Amino acid sequence: MSKRAFNFCAGPAALPDAVLQRAQAELLDWRGKGLSVMEMSHRSDDYVAIASKAEQDLRDLLDIPSDYKVLFLQGGASQQFAEIPLNLLPEDGVADYIDTGIWSKKAIEEARRYGTVNVAASAKEYDYFAIPGQNEWTLTKDAAYVHYASNETIGGLEFDWIPETGDVPLVTDMSSDILSRPLDVSRFGLIYAGAQKNIGPSGLVVVIVREDLLGRARSVCPTMLNYKIAADNGSMYNTPATYSWYLSGLVFEWLKEQGGVTAMEQRNRAKKDLLYKTIDASDFYTNPIQPSARSWMNVPFRLADERLDKPFLEGAEARGLLNLKGHRSVGGMRASIYNALGLDAVEALVAYMAEFEKEHG
Amino acid sequence: MSKRAFNFCAGPAALPDAVLQRAQAELLDWRGKGLSVMEMSHRSDDYVAIASKAEQDLRDLLDIPSDYKVLFLQGGASQQFAEIPLNLLPEDGVADYIDTGIWSKKAIEEARRYGTVNVAASAKEYDYFAIPGQNEWTLTKDAAYVHYASNETIGGLEFDWIPETGDVPLVTDMSSDILSRPLDVSRFGLIYAGAQKNIGPSGLVVVIVREDLLGRARSVCPTMLNYKIAADNGSMYNTPATYSWYLSGLVFEWLKEQGGVTAMEQRNRAKKDLLYKTIDASDFYTNPIQPSARSWMNVPFRLADERLDKPFLEGAEARGLLNLKGHRSVGGMRASIYNALGLDAVEALVAYMAEFEKEHG
Repeated sequence: MSKRAFNFCAGPAALPDAVLQRAQAELLDWRGKGLSVMEMSHRSDDYVAIASKAEQDLRDLLDIPSDYKVLFLQGGASQQFAEIPLNLLPEDGVADYIDTGIWSKKAIEEARRYGTVNVAASAKEYDYFAIPGQNEWTLTKDAAYVHYASNETIGGLEFDWIPETGDVPLVTDMSSDILSRPLDVSRFGLIYAGAQKNIGPSGLVVVIVREDLLGRARSVCPTMLNYKIAADNGSMYNTPATYSWYLSGLVFEWLKEQGGVTAMEQRNRAKKDLLYKTIDASDFYTNPIQPSARSWMNVPFRLADERLDKPFLEGAEARGLLNLKGHRSVGGMRASIYNALGLDAVEALVAYMAEFEKEHG
Repeated sequence: MSKRAFNFCAGPAALPDAVLQRAQAELLDWRGKGLSVMEMSHRSDDYVAIASKAEQDLRDLLDIPSDYKVLFLQGGASQQFAEIPLNLLPEDGVADYIDTGIWSKKAIEEARRYGTVNVAASAKEYDYFAIPGQNEWTLTKDAAYVHYASNETIGGLEFDWIPETGDVPLVTDMSSDILSRPLDVSRFGLIYAGAQKNIGPSGLVVVIVREDLLGRARSVCPTMLNYKIAADNGSMYNTPATYSWYLSGLVFEWLKEQGGVTAMEQRNRAKKDLLYKTIDASDFYTNPIQPSARSWMNVPFRLADERLDKPFLEGAEARGLLNLKGHRSVGGMRASIYNALGLDAVEALVAYMAEFEKEHG
């Protein structure tokens, strides 16, 4: 048995050992059928059962109301940046967007290609270290929707509240915090999440959409990007990413075994509390985000002297603490501590941080 | 060690045992790094090396000229049906399409949503049992491109020749026959292939495109569907389907070890010759396709009495001959015999066919 490292990668991210072990055991022969899940027709009874169970487990985990469709699509969150206006923004409509960092800005840029975007609020005025309260937002009356990113993976900025938009559908990029704690799905019109952080392997994006929002796609919307067509075909208008869907299903099963999102909330709270406490207790490590807006999933931090970044990363890697380098656009460090990472990973990290500070601080 | 069946599924299709065994061995720990390939950042040195090697191996296998880009995208061939006109068909242009069956018709329908399509030839006049020769085609002068499907997976109809279109770029859906035999890529403007037949798992589509065709996308083309943006970013504008790309790379390595596409041609010729010979020698089994247009990869056949379909399929499954049921739109049987299946699979099939005919014929 080889040794598994603690992998703090922002995505594609660590998956639970138990999930990978099961995938490994089943890889050449799923339940004695003589073939791999990745060799199954997506229309076979066995595969349809795998796919349906994955959807049902996700519905159970997030208590998704029955008037929402759950879609398993391709192209990642970045493709959703176009898919959302193509499906939900009328040509003469306005969409409100909240800018809290790099990912919400990318969503804004793509939406602008399809119509009028009103940036109703921006964290820029806080140097992206805090999230403007809703009292500071200038929402459009009768907007087609309001879009925000509930967690900014790069900046490490996360909403700990859900905006109130009345009848205007709330649309959220939840790629990096979905399933990290309980969620009231009924507050949203559409939730989307690239799989490769808290769900499964890359190449899959999950969309949870309220049924009344289907059927509004523009004429230029490619068939494959039309939510209604995906929904009407159970996400099998064409061959879906079958193996990624199956692996996501294994993650959902694992989450249920762990106690679901309530248990994840406890575990994730303990993880992030320990890490932020360590950072705040030190003059050597810093995280600039306003405490109430700090991400539970992605914790960027800096060392007192950036010349120490390289030895820090080398020492970490030597201890099996992988992928702590910050995003190329911001530098410094970043520890992504998604569901698959246990408290033991954060304990190992803070022990190393203390050790490194003692040696170099 | 469990027993692997012979899997004649049209797609997602069988993968080579050796590929799956290697994926299994590496699943939790790639080369002692302590993490799975599916847990690697797509921007990490290790992953970039995996991805680059896969591309280079594909280039080697098909001898792809240096002025072609190789893209590893998502959304399958069905998304390409829109992506192609969005990238290559000017709003006032005309695209020529050849109709040889269900997949080329789907491509035609989607392209019609974006402009003028001229169906330059249709196999309909031959009941889709033969391919009209190019002397029967009515091509448009200065068409934006000519599109055809080199192999119709459902009908079992395959071109054994490459159309001659002069300066007009030739665009081909090669999802089910790519890598099955040598190919002169320089004859094409663009080749696309969903991975789940002859390349790897579903959720990945490979596009081979001549560089001069990049940069023509329409303003409404979603960023994620723009070939130039994909090319400029090495297919990593966003997180690609990393694990599917890796597995495809393992298939490419395996193909090289087998002797490449020349060896595959020999092997595939032996397989299809044996199967068609068995069908033609019998009054019990029939395949209606004109011999020169018969697919090497997908062999549809009918039993003399369709009431025998069910017992035939049950008997096959009991012998570990899986997924021989024809496509729901046409009925009957279909044996898909892609690269991953050896001659032993076809030998087992024809032995069963003879036995079944003896009992029920």
